[in-house]
Amino acid sequence: MSADIEFKKGFASDNNSGVHPRILEAIEKANRGHFVAYGADPFTEAALGRFREAFGCSAEAYFVFTGTGANVLGLKAVCSSHESVLCSAVSHLNSDECGAPEHFVGVKLIPVRTEDGKLFPELLEPLLRGRGDGHHSQPRAVSVTQPTELGTVYGIDELSALSAFARRNGLLLHMDGARLANAAAHLGCGLKELTADAGVDVLSFGGTKNGMMIGEAVVFFDPGLARSFKYIRKQGMQLASKMRFISAQFEAYLRDGLWLENARHANAMASLLAEELGKIPGCAVTQKVQANGVFLSMPRRCVEELRKRFFFYVIDEEKPVVRLMTSFDTGEDEIRELCEALGNCVGR
Amino acid sequence: MSADIEFKKGFASDNNSGVHPRILEAIEKANRGHFVAYGADPFTEAALGRFREAFGCSAEAYFVFTGTGANVLGLKAVCSSHESVLCSAVSHLNSDECGAPEHFVGVKLIPVRTEDGKLFPELLEPLLRGRGDGHHSQPRAVSVTQPTELGTVYGIDELSALSAFARRNGLLLHMDGARLANAAAHLGCGLKELTADAGVDVLSFGGTKNGMMIGEAVVFFDPGLARSFKYIRKQGMQLASKMRFISAQFEAYLRDGLWLENARHANAMASLLAEELGKIPGCAVTQKVQANGVFLSMPRRCVEELRKRFFFYVIDEEKPVVRLMTSFDTGEDEIRELCEALGNCVGR
Amino acid sequence: MSADIEFKKGFASDNNSGVHPRILEAIEKANRGHFVAYGADPFTEAALGRFREAFGCSAEAYFVFTGTGANVLGLKAVCSSHESVLCSAVSHLNSDECGAPEHFVGVKLIPVRTEDGKLFPELLEPLLRGRGDGHHSQPRAVSVTQPTELGTVYGIDELSALSAFARRNGLLLHMDGARLANAAAHLGCGLKELTADAGVDVLSFGGTKNGMMIGEAVVFFDPGLARSFKYIRKQGMQLASKMRFISAQFEAYLRDGLWLENARHANAMASLLAEELGKIPGCAVTQKVQANGVFLSMPRRCVEELRKRFFFYVIDEEKPVVRLMTSFDTGEDEIRELCEALGNCVGR
Amino acid sequence: MSADIEFKKGFASDNNSGVHPRILEAIEKANRGHFVAYGADPFTEAALGRFREAFGCSAEAYFVFTGTGANVLGLKAVCSSHESVLCSAVSHLNSDECGAPEHFVGVKLIPVRTEDGKLFPELLEPLLRGRGDGHHSQPRAVSVTQPTELGTVYGIDELSALSAFARRNGLLLHMDGARLANAAAHLGCGLKELTADAGVDVLSFGGTKNGMMIGEAVVFFDPGLARSFKYIRKQGMQLASKMRFISAQFEAYLRDGLWLENARHANAMASLLAEELGKIPGCAVTQKVQANGVFLSMPRRCVEELRKRFFFYVIDEEKPVVRLMTSFDTGEDEIRELCEALGNCVGR
Repeated sequence: MSADIEFKKGFASDNNSGVHPRILEAIEKANRGHFVAYGADPFTEAALGRFREAFGCSAEAYFVFTGTGANVLGLKAVCSSHESVLCSAVSHLNSDECGAPEHFVGVKLIPVRTEDGKLFPELLEPLLRGRGDGHHSQPRAVSVTQPTELGTVYGIDELSALSAFARRNGLLLHMDGARLANAAAHLGCGLKELTADAGVDVLSFGGTKNGMMIGEAVVFFDPGLARSFKYIRKQGMQLASKMRFISAQFEAYLRDGLWLENARHANAMASLLAEELGKIPGCAVTQKVQANGVFLSMPRRCVEELRKRFFFYVIDEEKPVVRLMTSFDTGEDEIRELCEALGNCVGR
Repeated sequence: MSADIEFKKGFASDNNSGVHPRILEAIEKANRGHFVAYGADPFTEAALGRFREAFGCSAEAYFVFTGTGANVLGLKAVCSSHESVLCSAVSHLNSDECGAPEHFVGVKLIPVRTEDGKLFPELLEPLLRGRGDGHHSQPRAVSVTQPTELGTVYGIDELSALSAFARRNGLLLHMDGARLANAAAHLGCGLKELTADAGVDVLSFGGTKNGMMIGEAVVFFDPGLARSFKYIRKQGMQLASKMRFISAQFEAYLRDGLWLENARHANAMASLLAEELGKIPGCAVTQKVQANGVFLSMPRRCVEELRKRFFFYVIDEEKPVVRLMTSFDTGEDEIRELCEALGNCVGR
Repeated sequence: MSADIEFKKGFASDNNSGVHPRILEAIEKANRGHFVAYGADPFTEAALGRFREAFGCSAEAYFVFTGTGANVLGLKAVCSSHESVLCSAVSHLNSDECGAPEHFVGVKLIPVRTEDGKLFPELLEPLLRGRGDGHHSQPRAVSVTQPTELGTVYGIDELSALSAFARRNGLLLHMDGARLANAAAHLGCGLKELTADAGVDVLSFGGTKNGMMIGEAVVFFDPGLARSFKYIRKQGMQLASKMRFISAQFEAYLRDGLWLENARHANAMASLLAEELGKIPGCAVTQKVQANGVFLSMPRRCVEELRKRFFFYVIDEEKPVVRLMTSFDTGEDEIRELCEALGNCVGR
Repeated sequence: MSADIEFKKGFASDNNSGVHPRILEAIEKANRGHFVAYGADPFTEAALGRFREAFGCSAEAYFVFTGTGANVLGLKAVCSSHESVLCSAVSHLNSDECGAPEHFVGVKLIPVRTEDGKLFPELLEPLLRGRGDGHHSQPRAVSVTQPTELGTVYGIDELSALSAFARRNGLLLHMDGARLANAAAHLGCGLKELTADAGVDVLSFGGTKNGMMIGEAVVFFDPGLARSFKYIRKQGMQLASKMRFISAQFEAYLRDGLWLENARHANAMASLLAEELGKIPGCAVTQKVQANGVFLSMPRRCVEELRKRFFFYVIDEEKPVVRLMTSFDTGEDEIRELCEALGNCVGR
């Protein structure tokens, strides 16, 4: 690596950030001697214990590499190819996985339009028609993203209403929790409260976006659902040979509340960012800021100008609306720098 | 992690080993600031440059997480679901990927029985019948493992004969090179010589088993074959978000010959192991030792006894034959310890 | 079969009808001696000749069993699993194939909401975002149903506009023509004009709903797209062994304009039905009647009552709206009977 | 159809034959009025009743179009994609379905080499290793073909031994009975005795090769296994819309023993053929003739010469060995003609 590369933080995504020092330290500590590959090692055992501590003693966790892998394999465990999954149209599952659920599981995704990325029973009810009719993919699961792709957070009551709806209709509740830590930080509740207790059946629990290097987990709250998962994970090409290096990350992540500390910081930075941006004339925050994402409408010419200096995604080219993500290592100075640049641009 | 865990090296597999210090150092160095996720970062650019240096300037590399992922996605790029792949019956592809090629690509694998894990044109020729017949999966690729799962190494002439056969018959040559470094170390030749120059079209190039933490590469020697690979990798759930941490490993692995140094050491240890074991009465090395694996037949009761102290796989329960793998960090003392234990057992 | 079964015609679907006598006669005539299975027989040759006559000399037809089979295999021939197909939300492809396109091809379907079942370039344009982005399934085809599932018919100019849009954007145009004969009868144009000349690349051409017993065809207008189709058809379990009995049907269907005669009759009966139903107070035809389907809103209590005597589908339970299909053998008396019954119910 | 086409019977396959007159008559009788599509019609009800009569009252039958469809969908109902199916290397499943089982079910087929097409527990036992190991596709079913692709017939005791082996090992027994009628005719036993009573779990029951036009059935002997089959059949593109025309065939086929009459004739013709051919010097029947196939080795030059006048398949080009199939309408004169031609050729 040449020395003159500029290492600049941005707001494109929390996965543009690096690895938290305590995670890196855990990796280094795991690098001693030989251990049985594929998960039969003490690091994995310890990490699985942490999951049971955090999510309840019936929680069965399996580590995979990516959020897409976690979502797709979790659904593969519970869906047949003739079944369907109800999800938000803007969900990662539907929009950002290059058709992996369709190809790997065979399921049909039923995209639901939402205002704020959240599903509600009344949005889903009309989609249950055709059950028992052999011509239609049969609804099997509802998939929610917590927090949503629009930065909003489901309240526990909202999740409970969804899981009650699901159970009433013979469906399972799947949660894409790539940023679940940020939701928990916002709600001030525990991970178990937010998942098992709220009726979630299968969870994708993210680590990478919140300070880990590589690592996501599929968590089953009913071990019966996990019965074939070791085969599914292998067939899904998500079984790490040197598993201990993922496990050690998760162990450190769940130990001493690092997950929560990181998420709190990112959330706080997003709040600050939203507050500062909200003061700039011509700009408006378009979604509630409840996690670590800020959605902002701004004058089109400012989008162009800001893009020259900062890296971020434009979510809606029409209005336009941009997405700004904070992460565990976002600093106040970066926020000020961005706000100043935008303020200057608007002011001109 | 409790302090009293015993960190013991063994001969079960090279992926029971840890991470080489220079790889870990590269990871640490990559952990600065923010970089665009998914590979548009300078670490990935540098690593791809190393691949072109090593494999020729038309080599296009894509990083994935596992050897299974590399094999399956490489084949997905070049095969349709109605096609078939000829491979050794003992190949990882056929025996150890839980049906991932069949499920993800849809292809049929045509397993070929071999003496030493190696394919030859004369073994493949009779399997080409039925071409053009709509009832039969159509042969599209030959997949070789180099070195084979039985520790033997194809000579460059053997590879060239296979690729000539493939081309003559409209087939592509796929190479599972999970341990390609060990083959190159054995033959004393370069990576390009062993792949592109020998007519390989698609390569799985392994890093994990030879001192990396997580990382394999799919390498295409004809960029036309890679045209859709970015979508295939994403749909195959093998696109790393914090890509730089895989790229940095590969960059360090290919820089200054670390890959070769590690492989040479593992090979040397295997040779030593074979030499020592060969002296023990009642034991016999059953395959040529050309890479880092030793296949040994031994009295059944010794298998049971050794298993209590060492971890290894029994490949053939009948005879029995065990597989002993060395790795970049195997020490002579461990070899002596094993040989002594076996010698004692036999002597009793 | 007990003798007291009531053989009653209805309006549920054109596939509730039987087989046209001339089709049955063709089947009987084909039942002589032995012929090579799987299509290498003179009946198939003759039928393929009829397809070239009707659709142009570059049209390559392949016979399959069902409309779902025709749609799914046609798309399999031209789409990779990481690609997507834009189609109407109410299309058979999206709504009535139990996820077969997703499972068998792996593609993502992008459902488009429409007023009348028809797609237009301006509805599709906004869905092309994300091209070249590895996270998104890549649009590969537009699929139209002609006539639509709502009984409306695309004009040739509308199809040409869609195919021009498709070509401009590197997409193919797929047509589900399960009832294409009815569209041609409505427009008074030839089959070639309506497909090849309008820029259709792949066509599902239906026979079963218009007087055949079993038989649909996949028609490629560019033979290059059909290159692997014989394997796809076999792998798709759609290769008939006694092919001649499907071919003989198609030969009779396309000979002497039987397809057109049948379609004209069904269309005329639908027009008559719509005209009569439109006179009944409280009832309204909700879509243009351009083929052989009539969509009718009516008082809810009449739906319940009519259902006791007639078999039909309720398309929208809310309003409610029912679908009434006519077929090649619908009689005026049946229409009068239905209208009378509805009139009586409304009048009460 | 031009009048000068030569309608010549041959020995290529029983599916080169036409339709038995009683089957055709049943089709004609079913062609009255309208009936609900997709199987909710009295013809289907009657046919399903016949299946319960023939196979036992817990037998649940589903009609499909092809033998490949029956095999693949039957396995889809009972296998997950990470599972495997043990079958003979020469089975239709493994050799003649263009990879449909792999693509549609995702399973791995484990081909077993046999002498005479038959599987035995001792051939399967060694293939069960690796159970519970996440790296290996897990054996889920044994698939036998009855009669085998080599014309041999399993005795009931042999089937019972296989089903006992299967049960002991947690496997299901699948039977490809494309020509089951011929096996029953040979053994002189009933269809139930040969399937349900012998421990078969899922059966493909063929009609097409024995006098039907189009129609195969998937029969489940434990209705629990069929729970999702209506969705699987639709997603598998094997749901006939005008179902009554398949059902009416099956009803006639199972009524009054037509299936048995046809099979007996074909078997008798095969016996006669074998007897006559066996007398020709230089020719030898290579497999037991127990159904309607004769496998014959003959001088290579005679293969070439006979091919000019008769259509048949060469199974083994080396020796060479040809396959000659008889059917429900094979006549003694055709047999004499073939034997005479071969005798003349050999004599020269």
